Amino acid sequence: MSVEELYQSPWNFLGLPEELARPSRARGWLLPIPYESTTSYGAGTREGPAAILSASRQVELYDQEYDCEPATEYGIHTLNPLGLVHRSPEAMVKAVEEAVFGIFSGSPHPEVLAVLGGEHTLSTGVARGLARAMPGERLVSVQVDAHADLRDEYEGSPFSHACAARRILDVCPVFQVGIRNLSIGEAAFCRGSKRVRTVFSEEANDPRGSFLEDLAEFVRNKRVFITIDLDGLDPSIMPAVGTPEPGGISWERLLQVARTVCLHAAQVPVYDVVELAPIPGFRAPDFLAAKLVYKLFSYTLVKRKKRTVSKRRSRHE
Amino acid sequence: MSVEELYQSPWNFLGLPEELARPSRARGWLLPIPYESTTSYGAGTREGPAAILSASRQVELYDQEYDCEPATEYGIHTLNPLGLVHRSPEAMVKAVEEAVFGIFSGSPHPEVLAVLGGEHTLSTGVARGLARAMPGERLVSVQVDAHADLRDEYEGSPFSHACAARRILDVCPVFQVGIRNLSIGEAAFCRGSKRVRTVFSEEANDPRGSFLEDLAEFVRNKRVFITIDLDGLDPSIMPAVGTPEPGGISWERLLQVARTVCLHAAQVPVYDVVELAPIPGFRAPDFLAAKLVYKLFSYTLVKRKKRTVSKRRSRHE
Amino acid sequence: MSVEELYQSPWNFLGLPEELARPSRARGWLLPIPYESTTSYGAGTREGPAAILSASRQVELYDQEYDCEPATEYGIHTLNPLGLVHRSPEAMVKAVEEAVFGIFSGSPHPEVLAVLGGEHTLSTGVARGLARAMPGERLVSVQVDAHADLRDEYEGSPFSHACAARRILDVCPVFQVGIRNLSIGEAAFCRGSKRVRTVFSEEANDPRGSFLEDLAEFVRNKRVFITIDLDGLDPSIMPAVGTPEPGGISWERLLQVARTVCLHAAQVPVYDVVELAPIPGFRAPDFLAAKLVYKLFSYTLVKRKKRTVSKRRSRHE
Amino acid sequence: MSVEELYQSPWNFLGLPEELARPSRARGWLLPIPYESTTSYGAGTREGPAAILSASRQVELYDQEYDCEPATEYGIHTLNPLGLVHRSPEAMVKAVEEAVFGIFSGSPHPEVLAVLGGEHTLSTGVARGLARAMPGERLVSVQVDAHADLRDEYEGSPFSHACAARRILDVCPVFQVGIRNLSIGEAAFCRGSKRVRTVFSEEANDPRGSFLEDLAEFVRNKRVFITIDLDGLDPSIMPAVGTPEPGGISWERLLQVARTVCLHAAQVPVYDVVELAPIPGFRAPDFLAAKLVYKLFSYTLVKRKKRTVSKRRSRHE
Amino acid sequence: MSVEELYQSPWNFLGLPEELARPSRARGWLLPIPYESTTSYGAGTREGPAAILSASRQVELYDQEYDCEPATEYGIHTLNPLGLVHRSPEAMVKAVEEAVFGIFSGSPHPEVLAVLGGEHTLSTGVARGLARAMPGERLVSVQVDAHADLRDEYEGSPFSHACAARRILDVCPVFQVGIRNLSIGEAAFCRGSKRVRTVFSEEANDPRGSFLEDLAEFVRNKRVFITIDLDGLDPSIMPAVGTPEPGGISWERLLQVARTVCLHAAQVPVYDVVELAPIPGFRAPDFLAAKLVYKLFSYTLVKRKKRTVSKRRSRHE
Amino acid sequence: MSVEELYQSPWNFLGLPEELARPSRARGWLLPIPYESTTSYGAGTREGPAAILSASRQVELYDQEYDCEPATEYGIHTLNPLGLVHRSPEAMVKAVEEAVFGIFSGSPHPEVLAVLGGEHTLSTGVARGLARAMPGERLVSVQVDAHADLRDEYEGSPFSHACAARRILDVCPVFQVGIRNLSIGEAAFCRGSKRVRTVFSEEANDPRGSFLEDLAEFVRNKRVFITIDLDGLDPSIMPAVGTPEPGGISWERLLQVARTVCLHAAQVPVYDVVELAPIPGFRAPDFLAAKLVYKLFSYTLVKRKKRTVSKRRSRHE
Repeated sequence: MSVEELYQSPWNFLGLPEELARPSRARGWLLPIPYESTTSYGAGTREGPAAILSASRQVELYDQEYDCEPATEYGIHTLNPLGLVHRSPEAMVKAVEEAVFGIFSGSPHPEVLAVLGGEHTLSTGVARGLARAMPGERLVSVQVDAHADLRDEYEGSPFSHACAARRILDVCPVFQVGIRNLSIGEAAFCRGSKRVRTVFSEEANDPRGSFLEDLAEFVRNKRVFITIDLDGLDPSIMPAVGTPEPGGISWERLLQVARTVCLHAAQVPVYDVVELAPIPGFRAPDFLAAKLVYKLFSYTLVKRKKRTVSKRRSRHE
Repeated sequence: MSVEELYQSPWNFLGLPEELARPSRARGWLLPIPYESTTSYGAGTREGPAAILSASRQVELYDQEYDCEPATEYGIHTLNPLGLVHRSPEAMVKAVEEAVFGIFSGSPHPEVLAVLGGEHTLSTGVARGLARAMPGERLVSVQVDAHADLRDEYEGSPFSHACAARRILDVCPVFQVGIRNLSIGEAAFCRGSKRVRTVFSEEANDPRGSFLEDLAEFVRNKRVFITIDLDGLDPSIMPAVGTPEPGGISWERLLQVARTVCLHAAQVPVYDVVELAPIPGFRAPDFLAAKLVYKLFSYTLVKRKKRTVSKRRSRHE
Repeated sequence: MSVEELYQSPWNFLGLPEELARPSRARGWLLPIPYESTTSYGAGTREGPAAILSASRQVELYDQEYDCEPATEYGIHTLNPLGLVHRSPEAMVKAVEEAVFGIFSGSPHPEVLAVLGGEHTLSTGVARGLARAMPGERLVSVQVDAHADLRDEYEGSPFSHACAARRILDVCPVFQVGIRNLSIGEAAFCRGSKRVRTVFSEEANDPRGSFLEDLAEFVRNKRVFITIDLDGLDPSIMPAVGTPEPGGISWERLLQVARTVCLHAAQVPVYDVVELAPIPGFRAPDFLAAKLVYKLFSYTLVKRKKRTVSKRRSRHE
Repeated sequence: MSVEELYQSPWNFLGLPEELARPSRARGWLLPIPYESTTSYGAGTREGPAAILSASRQVELYDQEYDCEPATEYGIHTLNPLGLVHRSPEAMVKAVEEAVFGIFSGSPHPEVLAVLGGEHTLSTGVARGLARAMPGERLVSVQVDAHADLRDEYEGSPFSHACAARRILDVCPVFQVGIRNLSIGEAAFCRGSKRVRTVFSEEANDPRGSFLEDLAEFVRNKRVFITIDLDGLDPSIMPAVGTPEPGGISWERLLQVARTVCLHAAQVPVYDVVELAPIPGFRAPDFLAAKLVYKLFSYTLVKRKKRTVSKRRSRHE
Repeated sequence: MSVEELYQSPWNFLGLPEELARPSRARGWLLPIPYESTTSYGAGTREGPAAILSASRQVELYDQEYDCEPATEYGIHTLNPLGLVHRSPEAMVKAVEEAVFGIFSGSPHPEVLAVLGGEHTLSTGVARGLARAMPGERLVSVQVDAHADLRDEYEGSPFSHACAARRILDVCPVFQVGIRNLSIGEAAFCRGSKRVRTVFSEEANDPRGSFLEDLAEFVRNKRVFITIDLDGLDPSIMPAVGTPEPGGISWERLLQVARTVCLHAAQVPVYDVVELAPIPGFRAPDFLAAKLVYKLFSYTLVKRKKRTVSKRRSRHE
Repeated sequence: MSVEELYQSPWNFLGLPEELARPSRARGWLLPIPYESTTSYGAGTREGPAAILSASRQVELYDQEYDCEPATEYGIHTLNPLGLVHRSPEAMVKAVEEAVFGIFSGSPHPEVLAVLGGEHTLSTGVARGLARAMPGERLVSVQVDAHADLRDEYEGSPFSHACAARRILDVCPVFQVGIRNLSIGEAAFCRGSKRVRTVFSEEANDPRGSFLEDLAEFVRNKRVFITIDLDGLDPSIMPAVGTPEPGGISWERLLQVARTVCLHAAQVPVYDVVELAPIPGFRAPDFLAAKLVYKLFSYTLVKRKKRTVSKRRSRHE
């Protein structure tokens, strides 16, 4: 055993060896943003990114769906966490926008960027940065969430976590899945807006999954930003969120949504996974989130293979 | 912004504004009873009411099932917690009986009273108080529970939490749903008694839900006291109970049971939700319980609308 | 009340009275092995046996499936925990082998031995001890697990928890259920080995459960060692494991697997339940594990009755 | 027992009866501000006020130091929590300023206002509101803290929790006690500024307590705003803070500081107790904080009696 | 290694080998009473006895103070936990009385009985049982506690945990150490009663410890029942109690109190250690309690040696 | 703000910028060894290194004792964690030895190496590696610990955590501070061996600290390996250890010990800080450990300055 082999892998997503984690080699990049500022209940999303990174070191590289170790093919570079800006949520959103724009404008730059939250507020910055880096008409967003997040302002801020989808709508249309908590005003807004399509949890949980066809249509030939608020999942498997709502979607359904998007979209340059608020001593949610982030890297970066595989699964995907 | 608008809503269920929470205005009242005395394992139900109240402040007032904010229509008054009596469980049961009788005999009084436990023992007092306040033949009880609670005495007391259903049976017939833990004596009692109908968890979880027809029949034109021991739910969504038994019913099935009762009963003047033993740092169960209490207020107080809605759902309801 | 009746039952599995827990009377014995040494993440399996014993005292003796209190018929003797050997995992495996061999070679000896882990490493010792005590060709093993555990060496040891199934394979063929995490090398091994049959979680979760027929065939007329790594279950009901993987099997499916084995096998002299890492303040997993251990005692010791019952349930069992 | 006596006391600080808690009767008012926004590590101060209120209900009204139940003499009114403003920390500071100014300008108004945090940022608003409500030269502030909090900006905001004392210095001189964590820039600022006097933890812990004389001089005939960041206490008794620093002051020393200030100051119209981040399942810190808040009400509202008592204690006070 | 040596020691206090734990051999007996019924806040004392037993297995048998393994000299028998009676607190007190009387009246019987709580209510039963078993004038009690527990009734019961000392006073005089929480009525009772001597925490913490001389006088030539409510200790080392009050006594002072009593008393036939409410995941308090119980066995059972040792320590003991 | 400034500091001890953390620049290196294998009770030391690194990012670089930011002068390089070897504790000890030897034999190499545990077993490897890398007669070890750790074998292994000091004694003499838990055999060994000097906790806590002179003598002109088992500290400030023993030393005394050693020794090339078992949700111990590691770097690498400072403090140092 050489001296190097005495040591464990470095601190990065999946604990990849340095050569797979260099920016110049890695096709997927990961940006942790441990930002939490506007949450009203159930603090802790600032600990989310660190918990996902820590859990990811136990995720097996091998993926049965692909029968290989996808990460060793595409490589993943883990950026240092984004610095916090506490002047205002708007200032933080701006910092995220700058970072995302800077990442895609720089060289080398990733094919796919995954962002780890932190609270949902940061997704606004992600959408803005992406729209600036890749201008044009084709951008749409797919949101998995328990909450519509369509308020125009909340607790005095238009950049509250409760306004995340509304601010993304300023940038592009949104397809929402798993919603089961919204205000009367948001319900009215849903009905009135042509830019948002809301699949409530009852429909999202229907075993037939007919909404997946609509979703495929929505993303077809588009550039898609996927934003996953983990509270879209059912609390039985994802209790580590601020306001866990009963009636959420399952792990399997979430993967179906992700596969459907990645199959039919022209490109998925960015996705984020937000609102993990780790529960001390309770690791299952951190582990699930880490596995989800890895799955999404593979769905977005190993598109062709997946298509073959998933054809055998479901007509809608 | 006026000075008043600087402040949050007061400390009450759902954080309603004062005008909706006054006894004279509110059609629903809420009585917390943080009583725990005879539990043998897994303490903490005395923290249940406070946890439900705290979580309720994050529950969205808007309810998709009704497409409105039902609580702003009926109003909810939150009583101070009932004082504890530790002379004996029987004395506490008597205090609960007095309180419930007093509430319904007083003026103003609620249309529907929700009681938050605390241990299941207190349900005996609720049943007795209700029977005294509204005498007659029509009272029946519907119990959701993992345990039959049909012992005649347990650990030296006929008022143990393990005797809750047996003591309610002294007052009226009982329909039990979700049972999966009982003693050999209780099993014999079930078979022998005509006043109790026990739907074991296997039947309760059957997707077809045929027992819902029996349930509808049981409550038809009756005055119903619903008593929900949260351990009737599956531990995957409700781990915060003293003895969490695998194999419980789902959130959706529990709502079906509640809707069925409220549709077919003549009146549901009281329900209780008991045995929440909050797990420090783990909020999902508290949140689910708060949402359940709100749902039950709506099912019992906004009956007509619901009927319309639910017809579209299921033949049995 | 006599003086004796003043006291609770002694400290043993299910809190059985002394007369049912004596080695000479009890047909089922329980051996706790609080061993944990090679775990890399999520420590705590050394607390597993004590947590299961503690929770078991709240498990109701009556079992609806049998309509009796099975434990009062067969009796259960709880051994003192096995002493730990920290010279090396191999030395501990040897100690376990000696203990299991000693238990079956001694007099009195149990019909069925349940072993409580501790980490999965100890199952190797169980298999070896059993093979020595009951030599012959008929031994096979059924493993429920999230991980294939088929590595030949891990972190420098061929006796790591990650090699458990590979070491059991040295002794007898293995049928694996619920696998959803394996390395590329293990995947290749699965395909290449005739001695291992791997039912991945997707197949294991299929509602039709067709793999149960293969399982019945695999165990028919064999002597079976059942080894249950609790992470085979879904994290929604079993989060208290080191690396909780989403997509596991349900409580009901696990019982089906156990019933199928016990119906068709010639004999199930030993089973183990391993890798419970209790989460402080969170009891549901401990309780589920305790109930599982009791169910398995009944399935293995009250075979005939169960056959009758389960025929009514499922064709495959 | 009358019907009223059946119920517990209402939800307010100490669980006082309504007549002692009315604004018109109560000489002390309590304002909870569950604000947390700029914290970088160890979230949870937004849960602080609710935890203090909950624990206060177990605090005994009787105080040996006064040999009476002081709260029944002066009364305490608990305000609803201040609404959160998440437009920016500055906007929240402004809201706090408005609230404090409004409280002292209104009628009735308290003699002493206690503010419960929440993060230290809010103290800036308290100081500003107080200075506006009671203009003049006499205002000074006494800060107990582990951190100097003298940065002019932190993470992009001049209103970060790490700038709390610097922003108070904009309003009035500050006397700091217990400091043991500061940056090189803050250390230079301490040396250079005449408006701040810093008692580092080593001096603060000296058994002779000679700094108490300086403190008495500092506050003599002044109007004092006391701001207590609970991390000034030693982590052995106050672990429930974001960054617990070893080497803090004791409970007894903290009371000495408070008594000294209240004895020698002309007036102490406001104090705050901030940065409690409750640890799930660990109540001792919540309880200590509740007791501290009560003690401070008594020290500020029952001044004469205390003087007599404390003379017997220590020359410095 | 023989087969027996493969196993760990049995489940009893300190994990003693069977021969030291037999009733006929052991001079010290241990009675766990996991009773909790009248607690209002901070549940969990029913878990106390099990936590102490579990932690005791890690306590080293060797004691430096004696330079030997005292337990191997006197032996300790661990009884099964006392059964719970939930008819009323009074009925439980009666059961405890019967148990204690039965233990001392039986044969064999212990020289010293240690009782593990559970809530303080049970101490009344201990005192009554002891007085019945050993009648005469010489019985006195020494209480370590944060609370005076001198109420005549609390929450409707004269047997509440808050009345523990008052009920013991019905049996014998009481010397209280560490008190820092009492009601105005209790304060008046203290001043008026000749049967109770209260050492408040300020005096109890005085480094000179002059109250130890009074204590020595109080117990001289008496038969003493020591009752230790663990909240008498400071929360920094004993946070695992229902209402942790700052300002408690230290571990060293508690041992001084115990040594003083055991040196000067004629006999200490019983002591209890109550009110441990284990905090999930936090073992230090359980460990301290286990060590305390062991120390007290040695102080009471190895009296002579200790006298020699402690003479070298302190004049007061 | 440049793009780089958008990001937080990298993942290393103290979150130092890359240029201070490069091996060629840094005079101090840090080696995490998350090894845990032979622990019998209170698992979790494998999480210790990650918790210390995480907490260190909140430690202020400025140190009042030096009035500068010492780390920016000497720099610290954080190595990847050492790989685990689970063949046997002896094999892991060998791996540690190889790593330590390799680090000091390589180029660049550190002036001071800090090792983070993990269990105490690894200290044997550290001592061996150091002795090989710097042969000669001058090596001695100073151990802070609650346990003597002088057993020659424990649970079948001479490399158990309970044998750590005995194995270090095979390499060099040992000075132990804070011991308060040992077996009768270890007590005899202490008395009989000239190579070990044991300062029991009573002496270690004596305010006069006279043992510090002996300690100064012991290390004078020696090469010293400091090994700190965190359970040497009092549980009030360090509850996060496997077996927390009441009566430990204070934070201030621990710093005095460290300063004394560093002042009088010729060289302190290695120290380790072991046995932190983080308590979920409870950060104070992690933070203390991180601060301790930083303090020790400064004491060992900024020797001269410290000497000046500490002269003003204590004659013994």
